[in-house]
Amino acid sequence: MTETTDRRRVLVLAHEGFPDRAKTAVGLLRYGPHEVVGVLDREIAESSPDARVSDYLDDVPDAPILGRADEADAFDTLVVGVAPIGGGFDRSWRPDVRRAIESGADVWAGLHYLLNEDEEFARLAAEHDVDLWDVREPPADLTVSDGEAGDVDATVVLTVGSDCSTGKMTTTMELYEAARDRGWDAGFVPTGQTGVMVAGDGIVVDRTISDFTAGATERGVLAAADHDYVFVEGQGAITHPAYSGVTCGILHGAMPDAMVLCHEAGREAVHGYESFPLAAPETLVSLYEDLARPVHEGRVVAGALNTHHLDEAAAHDAVEGFADSAGVPTTDPVRFGVGEVLDAL
Amino acid sequence: MTETTDRRRVLVLAHEGFPDRAKTAVGLLRYGPHEVVGVLDREIAESSPDARVSDYLDDVPDAPILGRADEADAFDTLVVGVAPIGGGFDRSWRPDVRRAIESGADVWAGLHYLLNEDEEFARLAAEHDVDLWDVREPPADLTVSDGEAGDVDATVVLTVGSDCSTGKMTTTMELYEAARDRGWDAGFVPTGQTGVMVAGDGIVVDRTISDFTAGATERGVLAAADHDYVFVEGQGAITHPAYSGVTCGILHGAMPDAMVLCHEAGREAVHGYESFPLAAPETLVSLYEDLARPVHEGRVVAGALNTHHLDEAAAHDAVEGFADSAGVPTTDPVRFGVGEVLDAL
Repeated sequence: MTETTDRRRVLVLAHEGFPDRAKTAVGLLRYGPHEVVGVLDREIAESSPDARVSDYLDDVPDAPILGRADEADAFDTLVVGVAPIGGGFDRSWRPDVRRAIESGADVWAGLHYLLNEDEEFARLAAEHDVDLWDVREPPADLTVSDGEAGDVDATVVLTVGSDCSTGKMTTTMELYEAARDRGWDAGFVPTGQTGVMVAGDGIVVDRTISDFTAGATERGVLAAADHDYVFVEGQGAITHPAYSGVTCGILHGAMPDAMVLCHEAGREAVHGYESFPLAAPETLVSLYEDLARPVHEGRVVAGALNTHHLDEAAAHDAVEGFADSAGVPTTDPVRFGVGEVLDAL
Repeated sequence: MTETTDRRRVLVLAHEGFPDRAKTAVGLLRYGPHEVVGVLDREIAESSPDARVSDYLDDVPDAPILGRADEADAFDTLVVGVAPIGGGFDRSWRPDVRRAIESGADVWAGLHYLLNEDEEFARLAAEHDVDLWDVREPPADLTVSDGEAGDVDATVVLTVGSDCSTGKMTTTMELYEAARDRGWDAGFVPTGQTGVMVAGDGIVVDRTISDFTAGATERGVLAAADHDYVFVEGQGAITHPAYSGVTCGILHGAMPDAMVLCHEAGREAVHGYESFPLAAPETLVSLYEDLARPVHEGRVVAGALNTHHLDEAAAHDAVEGFADSAGVPTTDPVRFGVGEVLDAL
């Protein structure tokens, strides 16, 4: 694992993806501890040579959007912050990665394609004494859960969802940061690639051997257990036709005391599996609590609704509607903050 | 994958484990399509030179219990049918494996330790033109589920459980064989190493990448979908602190129309996790049905109780008690057959 306690100067590769298909790039800008010196998106850079991050995103540190790595200010880390379908490495990114390594920068990526198994990159990295961090590669010593996460003194809070991409990472980070702003002693357990890059450490749980899903989550919770509050990033949904196994392993591995149910306003079917309608909020609340109970009692204490595509009035209505259905206080963490959720803890 | 449609002459290695710690050996004897020419257990063979399988197990084909592979009648396949804790390969087994390969026999194993990555075995296998089948190694082309198992015309029946080792493999095989005895057109989808060896094909689901758990199960169901009935071997329990992710992935990957709830009479806590009490039968029935519903409606239609440690009267009482609690007809598949369960389908 790469040492990341220092503050780095990061260049984020997001070709043809910024910002909507570059979740990792946006996550690093919004929540990362590092200075982002630039974002690579050659499509944007070609059409608008002076484009900046602030043209696309509010409330994050600004940076130039560039076409090539050799146009960037000095950086010590290149992060591949976009993931094409299938998780492959696009050949057109090679010059940027090569340039980064040759300039002495580490490279981080969360692709299925492993940088460390790429012959050229591995050789170059050795020559230039830089680290290639394949964030998705699980640790070799993972094992099954010991069933111990429920024994920690910390209050463990897990984000759960109605589907993938409903704001679990964002909600977890907003809760973690707001808790620290209140002076609470809080820890963060990432389970996905963006979260792991933001934290600088952790296990991408959906890439572990399925028998070790709960064990990987447990390891994260135990490592953070000296905090008063531990915020665990969830994945998928317990009712997802393809990914529910990961969700269930995280639920029983983390043994949360409290859960926050994340949903995107207006979404009615499973993303990418449109023949499967989403379960109703009240059904999801019951299912998560009923499934948690035999292992560790935990309650859904709040809802987190992503309303980014709605206007202010519609967003208020959507939040109220979700709160009524789910029977718990609800917010849009980005739009309205997470004060109520922290109060509910 | 090894070609296994022919009937093989199999020698089963079960040193120091037969029969109680040799689930694969017993499974192959009871349900395998192959002729078992001998079982290796040097501990038994040393103390009782004329020992036979029939001294230990009823209702399976008899065979001698031997100390070494070179004492066996001609065989074409050596199966490692015992799994030490941790799934390692015991060095003391090397002479038997070496002897098997040198005599031209294939070797099958379901260990974490991969025969194909053992330098000596790989070299010998190439020299003698035999196959080494590492049953746990998932196919390289696995992917996420497409959510299609629910569309098949076949009636899909999944065994589910209160815990690990409650008889899911046995119940699945008894159902499959009894269905065929009735003349039904039935298929079998294994998900564990013993089932895969019995079937001669299939994916050990708990070794896949966790994102692919449902996808691996779906692949098995779709491959068997031309049968009228498809019996899917379940794993673990939805309430297991360590393995629930695998169970959940199988549940949503298989999309069963019917489930059979397997339990061992008298067991009150999760095996190996004794601080976790088992959920009550009625709780488990509700949980499995509620969790299945948002993806594919399926009912728990029967219970299967393992009563092997009880006398006949106590077994009857236990079966009745479980039926009352679970609210479904219940049997011990080995002791009382599975006629009632098939009737319930």
